[in-house]
Amino acid sequence: MSARPEAFIALRDAAEVEAELSASSGPLAGLRLAVKNNVDVAGFPTTAACPAYATEPAGTDAVAVARLRAAGATVVGVTNLDQFATGLVGQRSPYGGVRDARRETHVSGGSSSGSAVAVALGAADLAIGTDTAGSGRVPAAFQGIVGIKPTLGVVSVEGVVPACRSWDAVTILARDLATADAAMAAMAGGPGTRRWPVDAPLAAPAAARVAVPARLTEMAPAWAEAFQEAADRLRSDGCVVEAIPFAPFLAAARLLYDGGLVAERHAAVGEFVDAHPEQVDPTVGAIIARAGEVSGSAMVRDLARLEVLRAECLGLLDGFDALLVPTAPFQPTVAEVDAEPVAANSRVGTYTNFCNLFDLCAVAVPSGTVDEGPAGIAQFGVTVVARTFHDAVALDLARRVMLPAPPPEEYAGGTGPLPERPLPWPASIVDGGVEAVELLVVGAHLTGQPLERELRALGARWLGPARTAAAYSLAALDTIPPKPGLTRVGAGGVSVDGEVWALSAGALGRFLAALPAPMNLGRVELDDGRWAVGFGCAADAAAAGADISAHGGWRAWLASPA
Amino acid sequence: MSARPEAFIALRDAAEVEAELSASSGPLAGLRLAVKNNVDVAGFPTTAACPAYATEPAGTDAVAVARLRAAGATVVGVTNLDQFATGLVGQRSPYGGVRDARRETHVSGGSSSGSAVAVALGAADLAIGTDTAGSGRVPAAFQGIVGIKPTLGVVSVEGVVPACRSWDAVTILARDLATADAAMAAMAGGPGTRRWPVDAPLAAPAAARVAVPARLTEMAPAWAEAFQEAADRLRSDGCVVEAIPFAPFLAAARLLYDGGLVAERHAAVGEFVDAHPEQVDPTVGAIIARAGEVSGSAMVRDLARLEVLRAECLGLLDGFDALLVPTAPFQPTVAEVDAEPVAANSRVGTYTNFCNLFDLCAVAVPSGTVDEGPAGIAQFGVTVVARTFHDAVALDLARRVMLPAPPPEEYAGGTGPLPERPLPWPASIVDGGVEAVELLVVGAHLTGQPLERELRALGARWLGPARTAAAYSLAALDTIPPKPGLTRVGAGGVSVDGEVWALSAGALGRFLAALPAPMNLGRVELDDGRWAVGFGCAADAAAAGADISAHGGWRAWLASPA
Repeated sequence: MSARPEAFIALRDAAEVEAELSASSGPLAGLRLAVKNNVDVAGFPTTAACPAYATEPAGTDAVAVARLRAAGATVVGVTNLDQFATGLVGQRSPYGGVRDARRETHVSGGSSSGSAVAVALGAADLAIGTDTAGSGRVPAAFQGIVGIKPTLGVVSVEGVVPACRSWDAVTILARDLATADAAMAAMAGGPGTRRWPVDAPLAAPAAARVAVPARLTEMAPAWAEAFQEAADRLRSDGCVVEAIPFAPFLAAARLLYDGGLVAERHAAVGEFVDAHPEQVDPTVGAIIARAGEVSGSAMVRDLARLEVLRAECLGLLDGFDALLVPTAPFQPTVAEVDAEPVAANSRVGTYTNFCNLFDLCAVAVPSGTVDEGPAGIAQFGVTVVARTFHDAVALDLARRVMLPAPPPEEYAGGTGPLPERPLPWPASIVDGGVEAVELLVVGAHLTGQPLERELRALGARWLGPARTAAAYSLAALDTIPPKPGLTRVGAGGVSVDGEVWALSAGALGRFLAALPAPMNLGRVELDDGRWAVGFGCAADAAAAGADISAHGGWRAWLASPA
Repeated sequence: MSARPEAFIALRDAAEVEAELSASSGPLAGLRLAVKNNVDVAGFPTTAACPAYATEPAGTDAVAVARLRAAGATVVGVTNLDQFATGLVGQRSPYGGVRDARRETHVSGGSSSGSAVAVALGAADLAIGTDTAGSGRVPAAFQGIVGIKPTLGVVSVEGVVPACRSWDAVTILARDLATADAAMAAMAGGPGTRRWPVDAPLAAPAAARVAVPARLTEMAPAWAEAFQEAADRLRSDGCVVEAIPFAPFLAAARLLYDGGLVAERHAAVGEFVDAHPEQVDPTVGAIIARAGEVSGSAMVRDLARLEVLRAECLGLLDGFDALLVPTAPFQPTVAEVDAEPVAANSRVGTYTNFCNLFDLCAVAVPSGTVDEGPAGIAQFGVTVVARTFHDAVALDLARRVMLPAPPPEEYAGGTGPLPERPLPWPASIVDGGVEAVELLVVGAHLTGQPLERELRALGARWLGPARTAAAYSLAALDTIPPKPGLTRVGAGGVSVDGEVWALSAGALGRFLAALPAPMNLGRVELDDGRWAVGFGCAADAAAAGADISAHGGWRAWLASPA
C-alpha cells in the first residue's frame, strides 16, 4: 500500500495478519478484507473519518464484519472515507484525500475511497463499503473494480455509523464478481435483516430487456461513447436494449441534495456536528448543519414526492429486467474538487443517487477505459440497476456487460478470482435468502425446447445437464407441444438425459399451478443418488404413448430418423 | 337517520338512491354505501369536516369509492368525522359531535364517527372509513359493528385527504364480517397498491396461537372481564391464548402522540391550518400547529426508535398467529371529552395506536357488552391484530371470537349478511391479491389425518369435500405415515373421495419442494369436470401397493375391517 498510504486509516500488525490468513478456513479463506472505517471492527476506533467522533476501540465487530470473518476472511485494516460517508469524491477526510490508484491527479471516488483503492492495489482482496447515494459504486468505477450494492436491508447495518438510515446499504468491493458474490453470500442475512420474498428471481433471462437513459447528461462525448459500447455488448449478448426518459430519476436525486430528505443526515450525526463544528470537515459540516434546519413537515412532503417519482420511474421500467447506467459521468481531478467541492460531487452522483431512494439494487462493474489525452486514461464503469430483491438479475447482467480492468501499475498482487458458484448470493446466504429448489426437466423445458421460456420467465437459473438413475422409462406423449413422460419403473429402467434448473419456491408453486395434465412433479432420482423435484406424467397418458426409453432422452429421440 | 342526523354531512337524493339500488348488479348489489367525507365522492365536496377546506364538488370518485361502486354498491351520502381525521372520539367537527347510536350521552368514537353510526343504525349497509391510529376500529367497537383495517397500502389512498401519509389506511365498516369481506375484495387492489407476497396465508390454523397483553391498562374491571371472556371464547374454540408484555406496544403509541412522528399530520394539511387558524377546530388546530414545529432530524430519530420498537414487538409475537386486544379500554361520555378533549382521546387509542405504525393489519369485532349501571350498556369490542399481509388470519380469528351485537333500538333495517365466500378477501381481489391454488388431497392430508398439520402450517384453507372423476384407481402405498396413491386409469376407474384446500402459490411451491417420493402433484379431474392440482404417486410405488379402489377413498379403507 505504499502507493496510496492514505487509503488506510489503520492497519493490523502484518505478522498477525499472515498468521490468521494461513490458518483461515471457509469459503473466504485466504482473502484479505479491508473495512471502511464507519463500520465497527474489534480493536479499532470507528472514526467515520472524524477523529474527534471516534469511539474507543470497540469490543465488537459489526455484524457484516463478523459474518465475513466467520466465512474465513481476514481483516487487514480500516480504510479512509469521505467524513461521515458524506461525499462521492474521497477528498473530505482529515486523514488525507484518497487519490486514484492509477492517476494521482484524480480523485479516488468516495465515500468508500480507501476500501476501493485498497482492493484495486491488491492491499485487500475484498472490502466493505457503504452506499447511500453511490458511495459503494462510484469508487468501484474509478478504480476499475466491482461493487455490489444490494437491496436495502438484506445486510445488517448493526455496528455501522448511519449516513441516512433509510437509505444506507453495506456493500462489497472486489476485483472480480465471483469473489464479491461469495462475500455477499456470507455477509447478507442474520438477525434484523429483511426477509427475501419467496419468488425472488435467481437469474436474468437470456434475452433480457435492459433500459438505458434516453439522454446522457453530464457526460463528455468520449464517456458517452464508452457507455454505448457497454450497451452494444449487451445487445451482442442477446439482450434487447431500449432507451427510456431519465428526467424523473434525476428529479429524485435533487430531492436528496436540495430537498427535505437530507434531514436524515442530521439525525445520524447532527448532534455531534452541531456540538463540535471546528472538528468537522467544513464541506461536510455545512451539509449536515443545513440538514438540521429542515422541518419534519417538509421532509414528509418530500417523501411523498419521492413516492410519486418512484412510481413513475418503476412504471418506466415496466417490461424491463434492469436499467443500465454509467456509474459516473466523469472522474474529477483533485483540483476540480478542491475548486468546487459541492458542485463537482453532485455531478459525480448523477447516475447513482436515485437508486437507494427507489429501493433498487445495483452492481457496478468496469467497462473499459476512456482516453483523456494529457489527463491520462480513465477507467469507465457501468452499473446494472434492478428491482428490489432482483439482486441475482443485476449480478447476471453485470457479469455479461463487464470488461475486467487490468490492474494498476502498482498492483501488489492479491488472490485471483474465486470459482463461480452455481447459485447467486441471494440463494446462497447461509441462514436465509431465497429458497431455491432444483427442478429436473427432460422434455419441452430443456434449453432450446419450446417451453424453456416458461422457466426463464419465472427467474429460473439453468444449472446444467443431468441424468436420472437407471430406473425410468420414457414415453412420447400425445400433447401440444410434444412432451415426453418419465415413469419410474425401478429395476430394468434406463437412465434418461435431462437438465437441472434452480428456481425459487414461489416460482415453483406458480409453475405447478399452471402445469397442464397429464404432467406432474415429484421426486426423481438422479444418477448421482440425489433426488430432485422433476417431471412425471399421469400413468394413463404414459401407457398411451410410444415407449422411447431406448433413446435415453428426449433430444436423442427428436434427433432420431422419423 | 333521524336518530343521529349529525352522522351525515350530506345525503344523496333518496329517489335517485332507490333507483340506483334497484338497478344495481354485482357482488355488492343492493348495498347502501356511506363514505367518510375525507374520501372523494363525485358530486360532493370533500370537507374533511372543515367547510373552509372543502374543494368544490370533485368530478371523480376516490379509487376506493369507484371500486365499491363498480362492484354494485350505491352511495347514499358522505359522513361526519373528526376534522382531518384527527381524533378517536367523533366530537371534533363543526357539523356536530356524533353521538353513540344507543347512548346519546356517549361519544360515537371516531374519527370515522358518521360512517360507523350510519352502519349501526341501518342508514348504510357498509361504509368507508379511514384509520391511522384507530379511526376505523374504535367507532366500530363503540357501535357494535365490524371494522376491517387492512394492511397498509393494499387499498388505494388516491382521492383520500391524508392524515399521516405513511400510516393511513382506508377501512370498511359493516354489520357483519361476510359483508365487510366482500367489500374488501372489491375495494382492495388496483393501480398503485402494494403487491401481495406470493406466500401470504389464506387461513388461521385451527389451533391458532394468540397473544394477549399481560396487563390491561386504562380498563375498568368490568371491561377487563369482557376481554377475558373474549380470550376464553378463543380458548374454547381450540386456540392457545398466552400473555405477552405490552409496554413496547404502548411506547410506540407515545411516539405518535408526543414525538416526532406527528410531523406527518402537518405535512398533510398544515399549510391550510397555518393559513386559516380561525376556521379549524381548536383541538385539531393545536395538534397540527404543534406538529409543524417538529424538525426533520427529530422525526428521523423517532422513526429509528419506532423501528427498534417494531422489531421488539414482532419478536414478542414470534410463534403467535395473532394478537388479541380490547379495541378500546373505555367509552367516554360527551361530557368527559368536552372536559379533556386531548387526554380522553389518547386513552381511547391505547390499544389501536401501535397497529399502523408497526405495519400490522387488524379486524375489530363486537364482543358482547358491559353493564355500566346508570350510564347504560356499553358495547364491548375486541380487535385481532396480525402481521403484514396476514389479513386472512385476522379475519378468521375475528370470525371465531365475534359475538354479533343486537342492533340499536332505532335500527332502520338494512340488508342482512351476505353469504360467506369460500376464499377470504386477500385471495378474492378482482385484479390482484394472493394467488390461491386449489389442491385435492386424498390421503394423509385429509382433515384429521397425520399430515393435515403440514397444510395448516402453510396457511392453507380447507374448502370442503370433493371427489375425483370416475377415472382413477387407489392403492395403499408402503410409506410412513401410510398414504394412498391415486393413479389415473381412465375408463374403468372409480371416483375417489377427497378434500380440497386452497393455498397460496408460494405455499404450494414450498409444499412441493418438501414432498417426499413416491408422491407427486399434477392435475386431477374432479367429478364436476374441473381439474385441480392434486396428489398422484410414482407408477412403481402404485404397482407395488394393494389396490383399494373398491373402497372409494382412503377414509373408507382405513375404517374397513383389517
